[in-house]
Amino acid sequence: MPNPTAAMLVIGDEILSGRTQDTNTHYLAGQLTERGIDLCEVRVVSDDAGAIGDAARALSAAYDHVFTSGGIGPTHDDITADAIGAAFGAHVDVRADARAILQAHYDRVGTELNEARLRMARIPDAATLIDNPVSAAPGFTVGNVHVMAGVPSVFKAMVASVLPGLTGGDPLVSSTLRIFRGEGDIAGPLAELATAYEDLSVGSYPFSKDGVYGAQIVIRGADAARVAAAIASLTETFGADAA
Amino acid sequence: MPNPTAAMLVIGDEILSGRTQDTNTHYLAGQLTERGIDLCEVRVVSDDAGAIGDAARALSAAYDHVFTSGGIGPTHDDITADAIGAAFGAHVDVRADARAILQAHYDRVGTELNEARLRMARIPDAATLIDNPVSAAPGFTVGNVHVMAGVPSVFKAMVASVLPGLTGGDPLVSSTLRIFRGEGDIAGPLAELATAYEDLSVGSYPFSKDGVYGAQIVIRGADAARVAAAIASLTETFGADAA
Repeated sequence: MPNPTAAMLVIGDEILSGRTQDTNTHYLAGQLTERGIDLCEVRVVSDDAGAIGDAARALSAAYDHVFTSGGIGPTHDDITADAIGAAFGAHVDVRADARAILQAHYDRVGTELNEARLRMARIPDAATLIDNPVSAAPGFTVGNVHVMAGVPSVFKAMVASVLPGLTGGDPLVSSTLRIFRGEGDIAGPLAELATAYEDLSVGSYPFSKDGVYGAQIVIRGADAARVAAAIASLTETFGADAA
Repeated sequence: MPNPTAAMLVIGDEILSGRTQDTNTHYLAGQLTERGIDLCEVRVVSDDAGAIGDAARALSAAYDHVFTSGGIGPTHDDITADAIGAAFGAHVDVRADARAILQAHYDRVGTELNEARLRMARIPDAATLIDNPVSAAPGFTVGNVHVMAGVPSVFKAMVASVLPGLTGGDPLVSSTLRIFRGEGDIAGPLAELATAYEDLSVGSYPFSKDGVYGAQIVIRGADAARVAAAIASLTETFGADAA
């Protein structure tokens, strides 16, 4: 059976303006790979309800899971919950269970649960809450869309809350060989290898640092023995230039 | 006149598997913002000709410019030029001008221009070449799609080759104020400010480090005086808590 598929939807003007480097995608990608869920596509859109809704609907239809990050805080530019609700025809309002979580948290830290903070309890009716052990305000899952925070520490905590509940696939086995030759010298033998091992993915990633250059060859597949055989074959081809 | 719009298309399994953190998007975003070109959307797709072509066509139709990164090297997994050619119905083959650039480069460094390296001269017929002062192999522009390398140093050099030829817009003026209060306390006054200054974009980005927390408020717009007035208004509201 093929692995489950996934997409990531990053929401935020701060990424598109170059103010902030998105790191949530890289984190999620690693976590999904470990679980055997294939991240197939990523989109970044602005804080615009139409853009968020259109992208969420398209990705939800195309993949088994969609993970979003950003736009679920207490300020006026946090519009993800309402945008996702509108996109999937789900009614969104302050929900009692989410409100109770926020109330307990703000009672504990001695802060008022004011109108702005209460916005973080706006959750679609049919959604399941995603636990947020860092700052309480929950994410939510509606259909196959998992809506999470943009702050990296909170995003990571929410990923840890969601992933154990998802069905994984066969984690790919990955093995890397460094070849200290120009990619143009490696390309021929590499193409032959990729043809001989059609069941594996063979990637070549050039590096150049401090006058040393070459390419990292990354071989990935479901069958560890096949991956090992491909690496052995490459090592034999390139001899002393491979490590 | 509204600013020109743009999208970024990142091509590469290594980003989706979590092996590599994409940094080209962040770099391009900053460069475009400086030139007054609005980056509106980013997509990341795998090394798959159909996925590359579909995304490139969709983004090319929706925005004034599309910038791609990745997949134009000499190895078998470098399929971007052919995928883009197929997507836009452009014939792709080794082109004499690109070949001459490669030949001169490899003559200079004393390396053979073999069959694999010659793949990097495969360019759509009607495309304009993008200069690559780092490693010679050119990118290209076909229609409104600028096809560039994935290696960050080469990507940056190609961005520097392309951007001066594009019509920019009014660069946004941006000003930031740090407010040392929880976002939930800031949200009310901030929403009022956003309503009073509808011509500006008002973003709130929470931070928390070493026990100090608050939010960076980023105000952006075309009119420097309006941005300054909005910042002054916020400073007055939050007094000693703003810096």
